[in-house]
Amino acid sequence: MAVITPSRRVRKTPFTPGVEAAGVGGYTVYNHMLLATFFESVEADAAHLKQHVQVWDVACERQVQIKGPDALRLMKMLSPRDMDRMQADQCYYVPTVDHRGGMLNDPVAVKLADDHYWLSVADGDLWQFALGIAIAHGLDVEIDEPDVSPLAVQGPKVDDLMARVFGEEVREIRFFRYKRLPFQGRKFVVARSGWSKQGGFEIYVEGSEYGMPLWDALFAAGEDLNVRAGCPNNIERIESGLLSFGSDMRRDNTPYECGLGRFCNSPEEYIGKAALAEQAKNGPPRQIRPLVIEGEIGLCTGSWPLLAEGRQVGQVASAVFSPEFGVNVAIGMVDRSHWAPGTRIEIETEHGMRWAVVQEKFWR
Amino acid sequence: MAVITPSRRVRKTPFTPGVEAAGVGGYTVYNHMLLATFFESVEADAAHLKQHVQVWDVACERQVQIKGPDALRLMKMLSPRDMDRMQADQCYYVPTVDHRGGMLNDPVAVKLADDHYWLSVADGDLWQFALGIAIAHGLDVEIDEPDVSPLAVQGPKVDDLMARVFGEEVREIRFFRYKRLPFQGRKFVVARSGWSKQGGFEIYVEGSEYGMPLWDALFAAGEDLNVRAGCPNNIERIESGLLSFGSDMRRDNTPYECGLGRFCNSPEEYIGKAALAEQAKNGPPRQIRPLVIEGEIGLCTGSWPLLAEGRQVGQVASAVFSPEFGVNVAIGMVDRSHWAPGTRIEIETEHGMRWAVVQEKFWR
Repeated sequence: MAVITPSRRVRKTPFTPGVEAAGVGGYTVYNHMLLATFFESVEADAAHLKQHVQVWDVACERQVQIKGPDALRLMKMLSPRDMDRMQADQCYYVPTVDHRGGMLNDPVAVKLADDHYWLSVADGDLWQFALGIAIAHGLDVEIDEPDVSPLAVQGPKVDDLMARVFGEEVREIRFFRYKRLPFQGRKFVVARSGWSKQGGFEIYVEGSEYGMPLWDALFAAGEDLNVRAGCPNNIERIESGLLSFGSDMRRDNTPYECGLGRFCNSPEEYIGKAALAEQAKNGPPRQIRPLVIEGEIGLCTGSWPLLAEGRQVGQVASAVFSPEFGVNVAIGMVDRSHWAPGTRIEIETEHGMRWAVVQEKFWR
Repeated sequence: MAVITPSRRVRKTPFTPGVEAAGVGGYTVYNHMLLATFFESVEADAAHLKQHVQVWDVACERQVQIKGPDALRLMKMLSPRDMDRMQADQCYYVPTVDHRGGMLNDPVAVKLADDHYWLSVADGDLWQFALGIAIAHGLDVEIDEPDVSPLAVQGPKVDDLMARVFGEEVREIRFFRYKRLPFQGRKFVVARSGWSKQGGFEIYVEGSEYGMPLWDALFAAGEDLNVRAGCPNNIERIESGLLSFGSDMRRDNTPYECGLGRFCNSPEEYIGKAALAEQAKNGPPRQIRPLVIEGEIGLCTGSWPLLAEGRQVGQVASAVFSPEFGVNVAIGMVDRSHWAPGTRIEIETEHGMRWAVVQEKFWR
């Protein structure tokens, strides 16, 4: 593939100097911002991530800031999840849907105060949807993108590294909870979260000027832990069943199809609730499934149709060879007729026809 | 810079096989889709564009389709421009703003019928804003992204090439008007428009399966016209003063600051009208200006501050050496205090301090 051309529109992040110095090998663009895709190689990065600890520039997880007297009211319109149960140190995974129940994004909501939330969004301008709703309803709320850039620290040695920089308190942070911890006189939201299943934290760096100082502090503190620059890893995340919005699921999918039905528990009349009622009762007509693809598959750069007797019964948008499990691991959206574990389905890859087999569960 | 990593989320276009075969040199991502940035080189591409004719994959100008009984009502909420004057074969440049008058996008609206519009958008999910407004107001309108991929044909020889493929009728199409013209049994909207000032058309290709056949037909018909694959050209567009949303202007700018005040003429109570009243009366505090930057400047990969006595008085996000005019041409957003032609302002480039001089007008 060709090189990427930078511009003000395709934004660099506060950590870009560190990413470049670490020898980034590939980029994608996510929320109008650069996101690294590998350093040494996706395979070598995955192996390192599972053994040591990595620092990831995920500034592209931009925050939609919702602040003001009507903040909770707007959150209740946007969230299928019961916002009244959310505590002040909590992060909530919130699939957001349109009036037909189609997924618009799958942000992590961070509650900062009763009248102040961040939505840490997947790729897509969800702030435009929130803004449209707020303007039309005349809500007393500000919606903007603050100068907040998440930095993820992931891997089995993460607690040790984080404790050296933020203090022993980090060890007490529970999954999807956060503490405000000091760095150079400023307090940052530090949450136990991140897009791997190797354990880790996300630091919501408020103020771009703290970006490189924090990056450098983590690398200085972690030298003996073999800390490296990393990024969301396409092998580890497929093995772990972590879904990529825009690839594995889109606006033509409901949360039930994405296996996220358990998050649709709000008693409020949120947008899309009525449309989701039928699937809440009877289940979805298709759903996310782990798959193994047989043979050599090459790169998956788009969407691969799953075919049965010439009819499409789903598609795969994430597939890669897993050195750890010795098979091609994949994430598919599969019709009910073919989603039972063990079902063999033909798949049309960019590199020829192959067989895919539905699995019982993801690899971790 | 590093290579770009393709995925389903960063979409290929119906014309990508043609773009790849033509030897694309660089990509950016625009509306979650690949957009070429150069083929031979930005300089060589510009020289060819000004002499011959090029075919551009601008499928990333995605359409926000607004269709239904309330389509015009929604358009009147979104558009600062008087939609009642728009005729059925017309394209309208429509700067769209939020409730504070900040730019959300600068699409070209295409009127297909009284109850059917496309907004051909710049980079950004404006459909999410439109959808939020429509849902909150309970409008009877469908908002989605149809399978429509614009293909631009640009350059001085464009009328001859287009006439060979679409018939002599194309010559009669006036600027920002369109005709529905046949190709392989299907009729496409063919508008006289495009992101250069070399003359040209945009074909709104409805149905991805027509993409490569049309691409191939244009190249077959244009061999003796020296037709080549091209893309929006960073030299030609800066010389021409064509603004890039996200780079030259963003949500923190009003249409008046972007020199687009003349498009804010709607008698309706569109979103942001009240907020724009003050600037409509007294003019904006800063505005887009052409600049020449002295010395060698290298690549502009972000935003360069304009400085006067240590104070920031604007910024430049588009700057490049123009072989035709023999100077570094640039587009800046400049404070009123410094926007008079001839004003010299210090500019902090990625490659050192330089001097910028405000120009009377763009180069064409």
